Amino acid sequence: MVAAAVAVVRPGWAGDKRAIVNSPANITDPLVLFMPSGKRGRFPVGTPVLDAARQLGVYVESVCGGRATCGRCQVEVQEGNFAKHKIVSSNDHISPKGPKEERYERVRGLPERRRLSCSAQILGDLVIDVPQDTVINAQTIRKDADTRVIARDTAIRMCYVEIEEPDMHNPSGDLDRLKIALMKDWGFKNLEFDFYLLPQVQGILRKGNWTATAAIHKDADSDIARVIALWPGLKNEAYGLACDIGSTTIAMHLVSLLSGRVAASSGTSNPQIRFGEDLMSRVSYVMMNPDGREGMTVAVREAISSLVDKVCAEGNVQRNDILDSVFVGNPIMHHLFLGIDPTELGGAPFALAVSGAVRIKASDIGLKLNQGARLYMLPCIAGHVGADAAAVTLSEGPHRQDEMMLIVDVGTNAEIVLGNRARVVAASSPTGPAFEGAEISGGQRAAPGAIERVRIDPETLEPKYRVIGSELWSDEPGFLDSVQATGVTGICGSGIIEIVAEMYLAGIISEDGVVDGSLSARSPRVVANGRTFSYVLKEGSASKEDGPKITITQTDVRAIQLAKAALYAGTKLLMEKQNTEHVDRIHFAGAFGSFIDPKYAMVLGLIPDCDLDKVSAVGNAAGAGARMALLNRGYRREIEETVSQIEKIETALEPKFQEHFVYAMALPNKVDPFPKLSAAVKLPPRKTVSEDGVAGAATPRRRSREGHAARRGRE
Amino acid sequence: MVAAAVAVVRPGWAGDKRAIVNSPANITDPLVLFMPSGKRGRFPVGTPVLDAARQLGVYVESVCGGRATCGRCQVEVQEGNFAKHKIVSSNDHISPKGPKEERYERVRGLPERRRLSCSAQILGDLVIDVPQDTVINAQTIRKDADTRVIARDTAIRMCYVEIEEPDMHNPSGDLDRLKIALMKDWGFKNLEFDFYLLPQVQGILRKGNWTATAAIHKDADSDIARVIALWPGLKNEAYGLACDIGSTTIAMHLVSLLSGRVAASSGTSNPQIRFGEDLMSRVSYVMMNPDGREGMTVAVREAISSLVDKVCAEGNVQRNDILDSVFVGNPIMHHLFLGIDPTELGGAPFALAVSGAVRIKASDIGLKLNQGARLYMLPCIAGHVGADAAAVTLSEGPHRQDEMMLIVDVGTNAEIVLGNRARVVAASSPTGPAFEGAEISGGQRAAPGAIERVRIDPETLEPKYRVIGSELWSDEPGFLDSVQATGVTGICGSGIIEIVAEMYLAGIISEDGVVDGSLSARSPRVVANGRTFSYVLKEGSASKEDGPKITITQTDVRAIQLAKAALYAGTKLLMEKQNTEHVDRIHFAGAFGSFIDPKYAMVLGLIPDCDLDKVSAVGNAAGAGARMALLNRGYRREIEETVSQIEKIETALEPKFQEHFVYAMALPNKVDPFPKLSAAVKLPPRKTVSEDGVAGAATPRRRSREGHAARRGRE
Repeated sequence: MVAAAVAVVRPGWAGDKRAIVNSPANITDPLVLFMPSGKRGRFPVGTPVLDAARQLGVYVESVCGGRATCGRCQVEVQEGNFAKHKIVSSNDHISPKGPKEERYERVRGLPERRRLSCSAQILGDLVIDVPQDTVINAQTIRKDADTRVIARDTAIRMCYVEIEEPDMHNPSGDLDRLKIALMKDWGFKNLEFDFYLLPQVQGILRKGNWTATAAIHKDADSDIARVIALWPGLKNEAYGLACDIGSTTIAMHLVSLLSGRVAASSGTSNPQIRFGEDLMSRVSYVMMNPDGREGMTVAVREAISSLVDKVCAEGNVQRNDILDSVFVGNPIMHHLFLGIDPTELGGAPFALAVSGAVRIKASDIGLKLNQGARLYMLPCIAGHVGADAAAVTLSEGPHRQDEMMLIVDVGTNAEIVLGNRARVVAASSPTGPAFEGAEISGGQRAAPGAIERVRIDPETLEPKYRVIGSELWSDEPGFLDSVQATGVTGICGSGIIEIVAEMYLAGIISEDGVVDGSLSARSPRVVANGRTFSYVLKEGSASKEDGPKITITQTDVRAIQLAKAALYAGTKLLMEKQNTEHVDRIHFAGAFGSFIDPKYAMVLGLIPDCDLDKVSAVGNAAGAGARMALLNRGYRREIEETVSQIEKIETALEPKFQEHFVYAMALPNKVDPFPKLSAAVKLPPRKTVSEDGVAGAATPRRRSREGHAARRGRE
Repeated sequence: MVAAAVAVVRPGWAGDKRAIVNSPANITDPLVLFMPSGKRGRFPVGTPVLDAARQLGVYVESVCGGRATCGRCQVEVQEGNFAKHKIVSSNDHISPKGPKEERYERVRGLPERRRLSCSAQILGDLVIDVPQDTVINAQTIRKDADTRVIARDTAIRMCYVEIEEPDMHNPSGDLDRLKIALMKDWGFKNLEFDFYLLPQVQGILRKGNWTATAAIHKDADSDIARVIALWPGLKNEAYGLACDIGSTTIAMHLVSLLSGRVAASSGTSNPQIRFGEDLMSRVSYVMMNPDGREGMTVAVREAISSLVDKVCAEGNVQRNDILDSVFVGNPIMHHLFLGIDPTELGGAPFALAVSGAVRIKASDIGLKLNQGARLYMLPCIAGHVGADAAAVTLSEGPHRQDEMMLIVDVGTNAEIVLGNRARVVAASSPTGPAFEGAEISGGQRAAPGAIERVRIDPETLEPKYRVIGSELWSDEPGFLDSVQATGVTGICGSGIIEIVAEMYLAGIISEDGVVDGSLSARSPRVVANGRTFSYVLKEGSASKEDGPKITITQTDVRAIQLAKAALYAGTKLLMEKQNTEHVDRIHFAGAFGSFIDPKYAMVLGLIPDCDLDKVSAVGNAAGAGARMALLNRGYRREIEETVSQIEKIETALEPKFQEHFVYAMALPNKVDPFPKLSAAVKLPPRKTVSEDGVAGAATPRRRSREGHAARRGRE
C-alpha cells in the first residue's frame, strides 16, 4: 500500500470553510465521485475517503473523529465502468480493511459492501455512494415531503475526544483540558460550556477514563460554539424534534441528527381548542381572562410534552438523547408557545412581539429533553403570516427557483406566498372556516363518514359521491355496506369544493353563484328553501348506514364564494405586486390541500389559472420545513435571510382588495380568463345576467359588505 | 456659534475600535486635554465634548446616548493658563448651555461648573476634568486599595433608545425593532436577548411610550452582545457586586457600574466554618458525608445572599438594580460556590474541575439579583492557588511593572506570587494556621483583647505590649483601665510574629529558635517547662482586666518556625525559578498582612531581605481585584491572559523545597544574608552553636520530619 502523502484532515463541520478547500491534487491522482451529491475531485493515493468527502464539502457523519469506532461514516463503493464520468470504479481501488476497521466489523458488524470511510483509503478511481439512512414512516406516507433526503449540517455535532489526564505541572482544570482537546481535534475556536455541566465534568471524564463525547451547539453567525451535553466515552446517538404547532393539530417528527432518519412521527389535537376553535377566539380568551395566556401556554406546552412521550415510545428513544428541536406555528401559536401575550395580534397594527428567529434552550420553556437541548423557532413573516408559513416557504423554496410559484396553505388560517428567485411576496387572506366544513349546513371536519368526492350528471343533475373510509362511489354495488361503520354524516372541505364546482359545471348555479330555481321543474334535487333554492345531495334516512339529509343551500354556496374570493383576492394582490398575470406552479400545503382536487379548486376560482399538472399537494410542508431547519443550519440562515426580504402585503390595507374580492365572487372569476383550465375542462358558457334580474344574485354593494364581514371575521 | 462640521459620533463602548479612531482634525483646530487621563487631541470647532472624549478613548459614561437626559456625562472645564500643555483653557472656549442642557439643569439640577459633555461643544482650547465619583467608605478606610480610581469599561452598558412604533407595512416584531434601534444607536453588531425578556418586551416598550433602556452585556472576545434587562424609558442606575469568598470571611462591595462609586461594603463569616475550620477539614466533610458538598454549597450561597441584603440596605439599592457580579475565592471555595465537588483538590494531582474564568448568569447558581444579572469568576491559577490569588495579582499587577515584586497572601492558606513584566510565577505554601494564632499556646484570632504588639528590653528582658482595642502600651499609665472591657485574652498573629522576633533580637532564642535556658538565672521571665524553657510574656491574674498568664513555649517558637520556613521555602523556590537573588518589593495582602510589622516579619525570615520601605500591606487586594474586574472588562482579559502565562510551582514536587525549608528554620535564615535588614535593624551576632550542644535544638533530621508534617497538614 502506498503511504498517505496528505495531511490528515480531521473531520470538520461540513460547511466550514476549512472542509471545502481542496488539498493540492495532481491530474494523475485518482478521481473520486461521490453520490448522490455528484461532487468529484482528485485525491492523492492513500487519502482516507472521509477526508476526500470533507474536502469536497460532502457531508459524511463522524462522531469518533476518525477512530473507526462510531461506524457513522459508512460508504459503499459502486463498481463498474461509469463511462459518462470516465471512471472505472472497483473495490480494488480502495484499501482493504485494516485492523481498526476489522475490529469494528467484528464487534459492531458492518453490512456487506459497507466500508468505514475514515479508514478506507483511495487507491484508484472510485464512485462512492454515501447512503442516506432515511426511513419512510408508515404514518407519514401521504406527506411526500417527508421522504425527501435532506442534506445534513446539524446545529448539534457529537464530538468524541481523548483528554489529557490531570498533571500537577500543568494544573489546568478538567473542563479546560476537555476544551483544548475539542478545539484541537474538531477545530472549534471559541468554545463555551453550559453551566450545568461544570459540576459534572469531573465525574464524566473519570467515568470515561479520560474519553468523552461532547454535544456541541453552533448556530447563527457567531463564532461561539457551546458544549451543551457530555457523556463518558463514545456516545453514538443524538436526536432532534421537528414540530408544527397548528391551531387545530400539532404534528411532530423525531429525527436522528446523526443519520437524518425519521425515528417516529405523531400528531395530537391542540388542546387550546377548548379555549376557542379559531385563533381569534383564543386571543379573545386571553383578553377576557387574567390567566388566559398562561392557561393556553401551559396547555400547548403540555400537549407537546405528551407528543414527545409518544414519539419517544414509538422510536424507542430516551428524552435525554434529544438535543435539538425546531418549532413552527402561526404567529398566535408562536407567541403562546413562547409565553408571549398574543393580544397585540388581535387588532391593527397586528404587532408581533418577536418576528426574528428565536434561539433558546428547550428548558427555557420547561420542555424536558436533554438538559442542554436547544430550541429554534423559524422567523415569523408578519402578524398574520407566521413561522409556519416561513417553514412552508423553506420547504417549497420559491426563492430557490425561477418559476413563478404560488404556495397556498389553507389551514384554520390561509397564508399565500408568491414568488421566485428574484422576489417573494406573502400575505394572509381572510378565508374563514368554510373550507374546513364550518358554517356550511351539512359541513363537518374531514373524518370517516364525510363526503369527500362528488360528481353531478349534467343531464340528469343526479349526484354520486364517495365518503372517507370507503373506496366505493355511492352508486356502486356494496356502497352502503362499506359505510356501515360510519354512516354518511356530512360533507368535508374537499367535498364542498367539489360539489360547488360540479353544481357550476352542471349549470345548477350561475357564474354568480345563484342556484337556478328554474331547474326545480326539471329535477327533484333542486328545491325551494324560502326565497332561494337548494340542491339535495343526499336524502335523509333513518338507517345509520345512510345518515341525515345533506343539501347545499344558497347560503352554503355564498359561504364558499366568500372564502374563495378572499383567497383569490389575496393571490391577485400578490400577483399585482409581482407584476405578473399568471403563475407557473401552485403548491397546496397542509392537510386541506392534500385532499382537494386541483381541477375543482380551479373551476371554483380558488386559485388562479395554471397548468393542472403543475398544481400539486405538498402535504405538511410546514413540518418538512421544520425538519430541514433541524437537520441543516444552512436552511436556518436561508429562511432567516429569505424572510427578511419577503415583502408582506397587509390585505386589509390594500385599496384594490375590495375590487378583486368582488370579481372573485364569480365562478371562476368575473374578469380573469382561465385559458388553461378551459383547455382541460369544459366550462359552462359565460351567461350575461342582468345584475338584478335573477333572484338571489348579489349586488356589487352587497358583495362589498360581505367582503368586509369576511375580513372582520378573520382579523 | 460655529456650526459643527463633524459627523456626530454616537457614544460607543469605550475600548471599541470605533471610539478611538481620531476624526480628521486640523492643526488649527482647538486642542483639548482630558484629565486625569492626560489624553489630548485637536477637534473641529463645534465637536461635542463627549464625542471628543470617545474619539480619544476617554471613558465618559452616557446612558441616554447624547440626549441630555441621563446626566451621566458630566465634565468640568479647568480654567487657566496651562503653560506646560500650551493651553489657555476658559469657559469661553465651550459653548453656552443650550435648551436641552438648560432643561436638564432645571429639572435634575447640575452642580456648579459641571457641564453635560454630550451638549457642550468645543469652541477653543480646553482642559476638561472628568470627575470620578468615588466615595471612600468608612468601613474600608484601612483597605487603601478601595480608594483607588478604577478606569471603567464595564461588561454591562445601559443604553437608552427610542424605538419605531409598529407598522403594518413593515411588520417586524417589537423586539426586532428594539434590536435595530440598539444596533443603530449604539453600534452593536450581533445582539441577542435573554429569553425571559421575550414575554415582557411588548409591555415595556408600550409603558415607555416606545422608549426603553436596555442593559447590554458584552464580555469575552465574542462578537455577541446580549440584552439582559430592559426598562421602560430612561433607567439611570446600575450596580454590581465584587465579592471575595474567603475560607473564614466573605467580603462584598456594592459598586455603581455607572460611576464606579462604592455604594456599600460589608463582610460576614463563612458559615462553612461549622463544617470545618480549615479547607482540608471541609474537603474531608464532603468526602465523608453524602450531602456534604450540597450542604456547603447551600451554606456559602445563603451567606452571600444575606450579604447582598446587607449591602443593598446599606447602599439603599434594590436587588433588581444589580446587573453584574464578580466572585473570587480559593479553589475549594470557588468549587463549592459553583456546586462542584472539591474532593479532587484534596489530594494529588490536586485537579481543578474548572480553571478558566467562569461566565454564567447569577441565576444559574440561584443568586437572586436582577433576573438577567451576570456572574464572573476569575480564573484559578492552580489546584492550590485560586481565583483569589488571581485577583490579588490583578490588583497588585506584578506583570504590569519592572520591579521583582513578591506578593504574599497569608490567609487561612498562604499563596505567593513573584514576578515582573517579563515573567510571573506562583505557588502555595503549607504555612499551617500558626500565623492566625492556632496551635500557639496563648494564641487567638485577631479580636479586641488580643496582644498585637510586643517589645522586649534586651537588657532586662522585660516585655511591654499593646492589645487590640487600646492605644496604650502595657507599661503606660491607664493601660489596665483601657482594657477593662476586653481584658488581655491572648496573642494574635501579628503579636506572635513580634514576640518571636523580639525574643530573637533580645537573645532569648538562638538563631535556631532554641530558648536559652541559661537566661533563667538572669530573668524570672525565662522559666523551665519540662526539658525546654518558656518566656513569660504576661503573668496571670484573677482580675478580668488582666486575664490569663501568657507564655511563649519552645513548642510555640517551633510552630512559628515551621510556618515561616514553609513560606520562605516556597518564596525561595519562586526566586530560583525567576533566577533572582533578591526581590525589589513585597506586598502583603489580606487581613494578616495589614497588621504585621514588615520589620518583624523580616527579622523572623518570613519574607526575604528587601528595603523595608518597599514592604507594604495592601489590604484586601483580592476584593480590590474583584472590583477591577467588575468595573473594567479589560482587566478580565488581562488576568485571563496573565494567569494562562503564570508558571505554577507545586512545592511538594520540588526536590529543593526540603533544603530551603531546613535553612529557613533558622532566624532569619541559616544561609541567606539579610543585608538590607541588617542595615535597618541591629541583628544579634551569628552564634556558631554545635548542633547537639544545646538543649532543645532541632537536629537536621528532625527538622526534615517537621517539614514533611507541616506540608501534610496543608495539602
